[in-house]
Amino acid sequence: MNNKLTIKPIGIIHTPFKEPENVPIQPCYSKETGEVEVFGEFADGLKDIGGFSHIILIYWMHKSGKYFLLKKPFLDSELRGIFAIRHPDRPNPIGISTVKLLEGKNNTLIVKNIDVLDKTPLLDIKPYIPKFDAPDNAEIGWLKDKLK
Amino acid sequence: MNNKLTIKPIGIIHTPFKEPENVPIQPCYSKETGEVEVFGEFADGLKDIGGFSHIILIYWMHKSGKYFLLKKPFLDSELRGIFAIRHPDRPNPIGISTVKLLEGKNNTLIVKNIDVLDKTPLLDIKPYIPKFDAPDNAEIGWLKDKLK
Repeated sequence: MNNKLTIKPIGIIHTPFKEPENVPIQPCYSKETGEVEVFGEFADGLKDIGGFSHIILIYWMHKSGKYFLLKKPFLDSELRGIFAIRHPDRPNPIGISTVKLLEGKNNTLIVKNIDVLDKTPLLDIKPYIPKFDAPDNAEIGWLKDKLK
Repeated sequence: MNNKLTIKPIGIIHTPFKEPENVPIQPCYSKETGEVEVFGEFADGLKDIGGFSHIILIYWMHKSGKYFLLKKPFLDSELRGIFAIRHPDRPNPIGISTVKLLEGKNNTLIVKNIDVLDKTPLLDIKPYIPKFDAPDNAEIGWLKDKLK
């Protein structure tokens, strides 16, 4: 089970962030709006999405560098395991962001709190559903004293 | 931006679910335990993960069929856009599940509420962080009257 798998972008995310160093590290640190363009061949899949206030974008962090197993996260000064942090330089540079859905225009979704680089390849969109995605009583390890 | 991207599994998820029809549709509907095996070459990336009570598994739904843009979700009788539901038959069959982390044994994580098929290829693990992943006041569209 070490074989390679192939994915194909279903769209592209347009944002005001042209350089990696300017990208907010998470949606909660961004006030910016992005345009999530879904390629025409997949546009019918957007039906019914308008009822959701938040969506989960799954995307390919195309400017990630070589991956590290230990990396200093943005919010800490110590080396941490890559699977215990959210840094983009991971073995598979797949990113997830839960953003606010403002409106849809044809095959483009306008979203708030975008935290991805301009021209990021989009892999999937899922509706955000608290019962599925937000368990109660979570503990956050090394981040405990770093986040308010 | 229509080119193909290559991903490589970083591990494999072992679960009691041997057949797709028996897999719970989401973690909140599962009481079962799974073993998330991270291949040895990536095991150092698990450092510090023990402090988190919940982790987000990102995986390849290897038994997904041909994709649909409109599909009847498990919780409804109407055809819905694939990006407004969580059904596995999507253009890129990437799944996400937020599960409870019980313990780690060498390069394997024991997790509760597993909702994936046995032998599912693992693509990434991220720590679940409510401030990043759980926005307030979410509305859930067509699911509003289907979920308690």
